[in-house]
Amino acid sequence: MRPYELIKAKRDGQPLAPDDIAAFIAAYTRGDVPDYQMSAMLMAIYFRGLSPEELTAWAGAMLHSGEVLDLSDVPGVKVDKHSTGGVGDKVSLSLAPLAAACGVKVPMISGRGLGHTGGTLDKLESIPGFRVDLGIADYRRLVREVGACLIGQTATLAPADKKLYALRDVTATVDCIPLIASSIMSKKLAEGIDALVLDVKTGSGAFMKNVDDARTLARTMISIGEGMGKKVVALLTDMDQPLGRAVGNALEVVEAVQMLRGEAPADYTELTVALTAQMVLLAGQAKTQAEARAKVETAVRDGSAERKLCELVKAQGGDPSAIVDLSKLPRAEKTSPVTAARAGYVTGIDTEGVGLAAVALGAGRERTDSKIDPAVGFVLEKKVGDRVEAGETLVTIHHRAGAALADVNDRLSRAYQLGAQPPAKRPLILERIG
Amino acid sequence: MRPYELIKAKRDGQPLAPDDIAAFIAAYTRGDVPDYQMSAMLMAIYFRGLSPEELTAWAGAMLHSGEVLDLSDVPGVKVDKHSTGGVGDKVSLSLAPLAAACGVKVPMISGRGLGHTGGTLDKLESIPGFRVDLGIADYRRLVREVGACLIGQTATLAPADKKLYALRDVTATVDCIPLIASSIMSKKLAEGIDALVLDVKTGSGAFMKNVDDARTLARTMISIGEGMGKKVVALLTDMDQPLGRAVGNALEVVEAVQMLRGEAPADYTELTVALTAQMVLLAGQAKTQAEARAKVETAVRDGSAERKLCELVKAQGGDPSAIVDLSKLPRAEKTSPVTAARAGYVTGIDTEGVGLAAVALGAGRERTDSKIDPAVGFVLEKKVGDRVEAGETLVTIHHRAGAALADVNDRLSRAYQLGAQPPAKRPLILERIG
Repeated sequence: MRPYELIKAKRDGQPLAPDDIAAFIAAYTRGDVPDYQMSAMLMAIYFRGLSPEELTAWAGAMLHSGEVLDLSDVPGVKVDKHSTGGVGDKVSLSLAPLAAACGVKVPMISGRGLGHTGGTLDKLESIPGFRVDLGIADYRRLVREVGACLIGQTATLAPADKKLYALRDVTATVDCIPLIASSIMSKKLAEGIDALVLDVKTGSGAFMKNVDDARTLARTMISIGEGMGKKVVALLTDMDQPLGRAVGNALEVVEAVQMLRGEAPADYTELTVALTAQMVLLAGQAKTQAEARAKVETAVRDGSAERKLCELVKAQGGDPSAIVDLSKLPRAEKTSPVTAARAGYVTGIDTEGVGLAAVALGAGRERTDSKIDPAVGFVLEKKVGDRVEAGETLVTIHHRAGAALADVNDRLSRAYQLGAQPPAKRPLILERIG
Repeated sequence: MRPYELIKAKRDGQPLAPDDIAAFIAAYTRGDVPDYQMSAMLMAIYFRGLSPEELTAWAGAMLHSGEVLDLSDVPGVKVDKHSTGGVGDKVSLSLAPLAAACGVKVPMISGRGLGHTGGTLDKLESIPGFRVDLGIADYRRLVREVGACLIGQTATLAPADKKLYALRDVTATVDCIPLIASSIMSKKLAEGIDALVLDVKTGSGAFMKNVDDARTLARTMISIGEGMGKKVVALLTDMDQPLGRAVGNALEVVEAVQMLRGEAPADYTELTVALTAQMVLLAGQAKTQAEARAKVETAVRDGSAERKLCELVKAQGGDPSAIVDLSKLPRAEKTSPVTAARAGYVTGIDTEGVGLAAVALGAGRERTDSKIDPAVGFVLEKKVGDRVEAGETLVTIHHRAGAALADVNDRLSRAYQLGAQPPAKRPLILERIG
C-alpha cells in the first residue's frame, strides 16, 4: 500500500494492516516517506486513534526501527521503571540502586529535562564525574556486575521515535495517547528489559491532567508491552504538587540519598518504595506485595541500597565520596526565602509553575540546547495541607546572585495557593493496573 | 500566533482569527511554514472544517498570495464559468464564444486534464496553432476586443494554491469541501472577474458522488465569492454519464462547434445554454431567465456564436479555417467499434471508467507530465436509456493502431451496463443555487 493510501485509510477510519504500518514506519525512518506525509498521518491518528492491533504494530515498528538490545546473557530478570514525568521526581535516583540491592537487574535509559519537567540524566550529572554516555558494552557489563546502569538515549535505539517526536512537537500531535504510548514503549522495550513498571502521573503538574486519561495511557502502554510478551504493571500516582521537597539537580540528588537513609519526605519515600516493590515482584524476588515491600524497606534500613548507589556512581565514573558527604555536591552560594504574605493553609501548589520557575532560575531547560546549573533550585518548606503563618518561609531558593531572582520569587509566590481551611487529603497512589 | 498554536487551535476546534490565517498562508507561500506543518493543518481542517469567517479568510489569503488581476479598465461585466470537472465536458469551448457573442466579457483561466477528467487547455490545443500561453497583456486585450480569452494558469496567480494542491494530493486532503472551494475560488477570483457561474457536478463521474456534498460545495463557493463582493450562481448538474457523445480532445472540439451550429447532442446543448444564460443574466445583458435563454439561442441560430469562436481562435494564434472545415482538425487514422454482447437498454455508463479508458488510449493524462494525442478518443453511439441490439455499436473508438486497443475496448465494454428495462430518466440540471 502506498503512503497516500495508508493516510487516506486512517483518515477514513479503515483498519491498517500490521505489515503496512511496519513498511510505512521503516520508510519514514529511511527518509523515503517525507515528514509532510507523516504529519498528515499523525493528525489523522490524533482524530481516529489506533486499534489494539494497529497500536502493537505501530510501537513494534518503532521499536524495530533500530537496534533492540538483547540482555538475555545477563543473568536475572531485567526490569526498568518509567515515569511520565513531573516536578521534583527524583524516584529513579533512589529506585535504581534500591531495586538492584534487592536482586533486580535495572537497565535504565533516561532522558534530559525539558520545559517544566526535570530529567534523570541532568540530576545524575550533578554528581562530580558521573558519566551517562557509556557505550552499550559498558551498559551491559554494569547491569550484570552492579545490577543497574543509568545512561542516555543512543542514536541506535528507536531512531523512528527521535524523528517522530521532533515532528510531533511542531505539528500539535504530541498529546495523543497512542502516540505517547508507542513512543515510551518503543524506547523502553529497546533497552532489553523483561518487565516494566510504569509510574503514570495525573494532576495539575502531570501531562495527563485527569485520571481517566492517565488510566487510558497506562492501559495502552500495558497493551503494547503485553503484545510483545513483556510483563508491565502501572501505578497511577498523584502529581498535583511537586514530589518531595527538593527541585533542582544537585538538591534532588541530596534528597535521593536521604531517601536511601530513611530521611526523605514521606511522599517521595512512599512512591519510591511502592514502585521498587513492583519491580521486585516482577523480577520474582518476592511472592507477595507485602514481601516485596518488606525486602525494599530492609534494603533501606540495612544500608545496602546506599552502598549500591555508591557502587553505581563509582562504576559510572562518579565520585562516591560525594554520596557519603553530600556537601561535596555542587552548591549555590546563596539562599533566599519566599515568604507567605498572609497566614493560612497551603491548599494547592501550581506544579507546572514551580517547574517553570526552576527553568527561569537555570535549573531546567527552556530549549534542548539550553545550559543548566546543577547547583541551583528550591527546597519547598511547605507543602499542600501545611499550616503557614504570615512571613513564614514557603520555599528556600538556592541561587547564584542573579537577575532572575525577583522573577523566580514572584513565580513561586504565585504558585502557592493559601486558604482558610486545610484541603482534603489526596492519595499519592491512586491505583495499580496490570 | 505561531504555526504550532494555529494547528493546535484548529485541531481542538477553536476559531482561528482571519489575521492569523492570512499570516499562516503568507508564511507557507514564502516557505517559512514547512510542508509538514501545513499538512497537519490540512488534516485538522479535514476533520474540523472551516467556519464561514475562517473560510473567507483562508480563500482570501490564497487569492492574495499572488497577483490579483484588475480588469476594471475593460468595459463590461466580466463573468467566468467554472465546472468541477467531468468526462466529455466541453462546455467551456462553446460557452465562452456564446457568452461573448451575447455581450458578456469572459476572462477564462483553465486547466489541463488529469486522471479521468479532461482539460479545456488540451482540447483548445487540438486546434492547429491555438496558443493558451498568452501573457496577461494579451489576455486583457482579448477580453476587451474579442470578449473572451482562454489561457492557462500563470505562476503569478494564487501561488499558494499551487503549493497547497500539490501537498493535498499526497496527504489525502484533496476531498475536503472547504479546501476544494478555497482552491477553486482563489484561482477564479484572481482572474479579475465580477461574477461567476459554477457548474457543480454530481453523480458517478463527478468528484462529488452525492447531491448533498455537491450542494454543500456549491454553497461554500458562493459564500466565499459573496464574502469578496462577487456575484456567484451555481447549477447542480448530473454527471452520471459522460456529457454529449465525444470524449477526446479534437473530437470534443468538433462537438463544440456542432453545438454552436445547433447540431450537438441535447444534454450538452442544454447544459451549455443553461450555464451561458446564467452568465448573460449576471452580466446584466438580460433581465429574466427567459430573456437570457432567448438571447443565447439567438446567438446560436444567427451564427454569431460560431463567428465569435472563429474570431477567438484567430486572436489566440489558431487556424479558424479548422473551425469552418472540421476535417482540418487532428484525426486518428482508424476507428473500431465496441459492440454490445447482448440486446437491452443502456441502464448506466461508468463515467470514470470511460475517462480512464481515454487515459489508456492516450487522450488523457495519467501524470502531469504524460503526453497526450489530440486525435484519439471515443464517440458514444449509445447513451443511458437507449435501446441496443446484440452486436450493435456502443462506442466508436478513434485510434492509431496500437497495443492499447484491446484494453480500451475491454474497459469500454465493462463501462456499459445493459438491462431489460429502460432506466428512470435523470434530470440534467438538478437545481440552481444563489
